[in-house]
Amino acid sequence: MKHNFGAGPCILPQEVFQEASQAVIDFNNTGLSILEISHRSKEFEEVVKETEQLVKELLNVPMGYSILFLQGGASQQFAMVPLNLLPENGKAAYLDTGVWATKAAKEAKKIGQVEIVASSGDQNYSYIPKNYQIPSDASYFHFTSNNTIYGTEVFEKPQTSVPTVVDMSSDILSRSIDVSQYDLIYAGAQKNMGPAGVTLVIIKDDLFHKSGRTLPSIFDYEAHAKAGSMYNTPPVFSIFVSMLNLRWLKAKGGVEAIEQENIIKARILYDEIDRNPFFKGTAAVEDRSRMNVTFVMDTPELEAEFLALAKERNLVGIKGHRSVGGFRASIYNALTISSINALVDTMREFEENHQ
Amino acid sequence: MKHNFGAGPCILPQEVFQEASQAVIDFNNTGLSILEISHRSKEFEEVVKETEQLVKELLNVPMGYSILFLQGGASQQFAMVPLNLLPENGKAAYLDTGVWATKAAKEAKKIGQVEIVASSGDQNYSYIPKNYQIPSDASYFHFTSNNTIYGTEVFEKPQTSVPTVVDMSSDILSRSIDVSQYDLIYAGAQKNMGPAGVTLVIIKDDLFHKSGRTLPSIFDYEAHAKAGSMYNTPPVFSIFVSMLNLRWLKAKGGVEAIEQENIIKARILYDEIDRNPFFKGTAAVEDRSRMNVTFVMDTPELEAEFLALAKERNLVGIKGHRSVGGFRASIYNALTISSINALVDTMREFEENHQ
Repeated sequence: MKHNFGAGPCILPQEVFQEASQAVIDFNNTGLSILEISHRSKEFEEVVKETEQLVKELLNVPMGYSILFLQGGASQQFAMVPLNLLPENGKAAYLDTGVWATKAAKEAKKIGQVEIVASSGDQNYSYIPKNYQIPSDASYFHFTSNNTIYGTEVFEKPQTSVPTVVDMSSDILSRSIDVSQYDLIYAGAQKNMGPAGVTLVIIKDDLFHKSGRTLPSIFDYEAHAKAGSMYNTPPVFSIFVSMLNLRWLKAKGGVEAIEQENIIKARILYDEIDRNPFFKGTAAVEDRSRMNVTFVMDTPELEAEFLALAKERNLVGIKGHRSVGGFRASIYNALTISSINALVDTMREFEENHQ
Repeated sequence: MKHNFGAGPCILPQEVFQEASQAVIDFNNTGLSILEISHRSKEFEEVVKETEQLVKELLNVPMGYSILFLQGGASQQFAMVPLNLLPENGKAAYLDTGVWATKAAKEAKKIGQVEIVASSGDQNYSYIPKNYQIPSDASYFHFTSNNTIYGTEVFEKPQTSVPTVVDMSSDILSRSIDVSQYDLIYAGAQKNMGPAGVTLVIIKDDLFHKSGRTLPSIFDYEAHAKAGSMYNTPPVFSIFVSMLNLRWLKAKGGVEAIEQENIIKARILYDEIDRNPFFKGTAAVEDRSRMNVTFVMDTPELEAEFLALAKERNLVGIKGHRSVGGFRASIYNALTISSINALVDTMREFEENHQ
């Protein structure tokens, strides 16, 4: 049994894999594979509806928002957000908390004017900037709620009167949020929602066509909303597996229940990092992510040795991103406390080996 | 055993379903599901490389072309093609052979100037226009090689000196083509390449940035080419299943072998349509598609009766598109001759019942 701490695409529940595997052979007793059914079939239309309903229910999405399943990942949203929301003469405000936030702003700059309201680039993005000003004449404010590479997370929505857009790719469905505080939420599915290949967008309907630009339909949120995410052939299998995963989350007690589990999982791991003299965390304590736990050692030689031990103990995917180094344990919804314990045990074993 | 004549997403080989189902539980003996592995893992990088190599080999793609696996389907290509190829002051030439060709032109018109060089809309797209002029100053010429709804197919590349772009979504890999005659070929995977969720693009490298427009990276072919289709998280599972399907095609003897089978399958079915007094084909005989066979009856009552009989005989997906009516048998690569025979037998049974 492997403990998959990979940053994404990442672990999903074993029962989801079992059900998905079965549907590749026979979907819903149709005698057909989920891979060969028409996206216009009654059976698949029900899949899309149920997935939408589960998102609505699990995140308490209020009236007046559309839930879309798109393609292209968060990276495509980096372009679609300004295309839909930023008028020719407008200005967008971006918070810079790491590589993905920087990319989002960089892509928006190709479309219109962008102001970076704050950046933690001065300290390798190891903290979340606070006390910055968001210009009240901005068309929208954009931020990234969880920074997978640096292990930081924004738990409180920044205060602003302008429409707020958030990239929640790596922490959506891991904790309760008040959707009504946001105008547009997007997330590549491949962390807590499902497999790669589908992107969730939750958009307030009054944002449609806010930029006033002429857009190809495929980039127009309203075209997708009107078509119920069936403007063109959707990524059938990725949506189906997302549905299975959301069903699992609901059966677990929903976002509120998983949030409690995620808090405990993160606490166990951070406590060990803080206690164990061989390891130290890299992110500012108050901004520590509950999804991606980054930590380092004093010397590269010891790090290599710990990685080798981790591999022996079936811990997968804990090598840190090259821009931070050391280790990164991604502890998404489907990662169990027993996997957390396996990592902590390995850290203690390492400590004992060196005493 | 169902005979799946669905228009797409469509039938793939049973052995592909078996292998895909297995990989959802354990991919390549990694102990991990294909749905939870990193797209940056060595194992998945090899999947992308092999898929690319198989496309290159099966279609004899010459040097100087890039093979890309993108998201968003053919519909996203309707926008990306003009964004990348049509300069602000340029003009694009489109051939109008049906709904999808019309949509491609409509989306391009949002980006620049478009000239429709010919249309078969006057006869409900039941034929392929011939003897039209393609302006020599066009930035490119675009056509759709197979029209799923109307059952027509363009077997000869139209003659022109301008760069040629073709939407081959529904006939790619079903017959030999000379890739060097084209400058850009695109195809949603969900017919003969794989499941929904990935789009194949084969582009001549000297077309990069031909429009001179500033593009978000996600819409820029060169950004995807430079990154080896890993500019952002790719649709992992859809690419993996495409690889399995291309392996199957190679083992069958490749495109040349499947083309011979496809010719025979189409001939058997068209022969029965022409022979059986209850049925008649809708497409001009010289333009009949080998992928989608469209046919009708004299009265709606008889059509309903035949559909009911077809259902009893386990024939799935043969109801025609509403804009043509009657029946459509999609007979893609993975549909076997025994399924063709099952349909023909049912047509004969129907004839006998009414004598």
